[in-house]
Amino acid sequence: MTQTIFGIHPVTEALKSPSLLVEKIFLGTRTPHPSLQAILDLATERNIPVTVVDENTLAQMAKGGLHQNVVAVVKGSPYVDLQEILSRWKKGDAKGLFLVLDGIQDPQNLGALIRTALGCGVQGMIIPKDRAVGITPAVVKTSAGAAAHLPIARVVNIANTVDVLKKEGFWIYGAAGEADEVIYNLDLNIDLAVVIGAEGKGIRPLVKKKCDRLFSIPMQGPISSFNASVSSAMILYEVMRQRHAPRNGRKP
Amino acid sequence: MTQTIFGIHPVTEALKSPSLLVEKIFLGTRTPHPSLQAILDLATERNIPVTVVDENTLAQMAKGGLHQNVVAVVKGSPYVDLQEILSRWKKGDAKGLFLVLDGIQDPQNLGALIRTALGCGVQGMIIPKDRAVGITPAVVKTSAGAAAHLPIARVVNIANTVDVLKKEGFWIYGAAGEADEVIYNLDLNIDLAVVIGAEGKGIRPLVKKKCDRLFSIPMQGPISSFNASVSSAMILYEVMRQRHAPRNGRKP
Repeated sequence: MTQTIFGIHPVTEALKSPSLLVEKIFLGTRTPHPSLQAILDLATERNIPVTVVDENTLAQMAKGGLHQNVVAVVKGSPYVDLQEILSRWKKGDAKGLFLVLDGIQDPQNLGALIRTALGCGVQGMIIPKDRAVGITPAVVKTSAGAAAHLPIARVVNIANTVDVLKKEGFWIYGAAGEADEVIYNLDLNIDLAVVIGAEGKGIRPLVKKKCDRLFSIPMQGPISSFNASVSSAMILYEVMRQRHAPRNGRKP
Repeated sequence: MTQTIFGIHPVTEALKSPSLLVEKIFLGTRTPHPSLQAILDLATERNIPVTVVDENTLAQMAKGGLHQNVVAVVKGSPYVDLQEILSRWKKGDAKGLFLVLDGIQDPQNLGALIRTALGCGVQGMIIPKDRAVGITPAVVKTSAGAAAHLPIARVVNIANTVDVLKKEGFWIYGAAGEADEVIYNLDLNIDLAVVIGAEGKGIRPLVKKKCDRLFSIPMQGPISSFNASVSSAMILYEVMRQRHAPRNGRKP
């Protein structure tokens, strides 16, 4: 399976990714500036063919996206198996932190979530095959390259996946605006899978029922919810804080 | 000064806002569904004229944005004075929490930030007049109506504004990826103005120098920064947590 990615940052990250193979690179200019030159140097080092094409061809390859004069054709699926995520995690010694997205639709939200997840030490992300956005070029671009580094599994059935994670010893905590339990009171220093629902709709009832706990983020004023990528950022921040903040309040 | 806003949520919020006056409403349909009907009911209650126009006219008014069959012409500036923000805050008894944005360029980021700020109890936002996005219809739409509720001041000089806030007793804390001080160690239960820099560029040197403290959010893995609206969400969450989480770990 090949995919097309574009933009300086995503192409650079793909060149550095251990799980992706860059097959070809297309440039829109014969006079590359320093960031493009760095891509060319990496490509030369790895014997990756580089072709200069005209503006229109490049724009078509990027399907109108902001390509910054560079497009790459990349081999390798952007997804891994759930079992692969689990076995990679078992090799490390960190407490588990997985993110289960039950139906995120917006590519900007998914891209932002991937970048945030990677920066917060999430070891794997699980997304559903249906009724949700997958790892499209727009998502890769919004993730600022993070999509090449975060193991992401795409599964047919989120509820079944939750059962698998439970058997592996994970606690399943779902974010739900209506929950009485507030995030401040949770101990998140456990093997944890956080479930985030679709924008505006939340977690589906069947998946919600499978959660060990539902929790909410307190909110003030007249708004009814935070954006999905914003509430995820707050949750992942809280996990990081609980796991890494020095208990005595001094510098680590 | 009038502005044009569109979409069911932004128009509904404008109708409810104490600082905006909806002058006219334009509908793209003669058979409104329930959410549009609710807008019509509010308009009738307030004697606001409603006109049905054709699809093209509506699309032009919304400048191609997702108008959901409703556009409103609204009187009143989306901005307030800094002094107005300060005097509104002094009337309450909450610790100060202001957000100073030093050059956010992206309307999606600004819209998301306004929504997050309102939900986290921010009492006022300060943005610069130049080299930054203002409160455009796209920003109002992304804010999901929050822009009508959060007092926002647009100032000529952020550095001078920081001086004014200091004189009012505010502590100025700037988010800077390179700072040694990490957010976990800060006491945020003070009259606080948080400064956020532009996407990719951070806070400008002159403004940075004026900050009482610079702090960073710890990050893991290969990414170099969080998105501006994501890092702001984490910071504002931490302020909320410190101010509102029960100290004994039990339910509030």
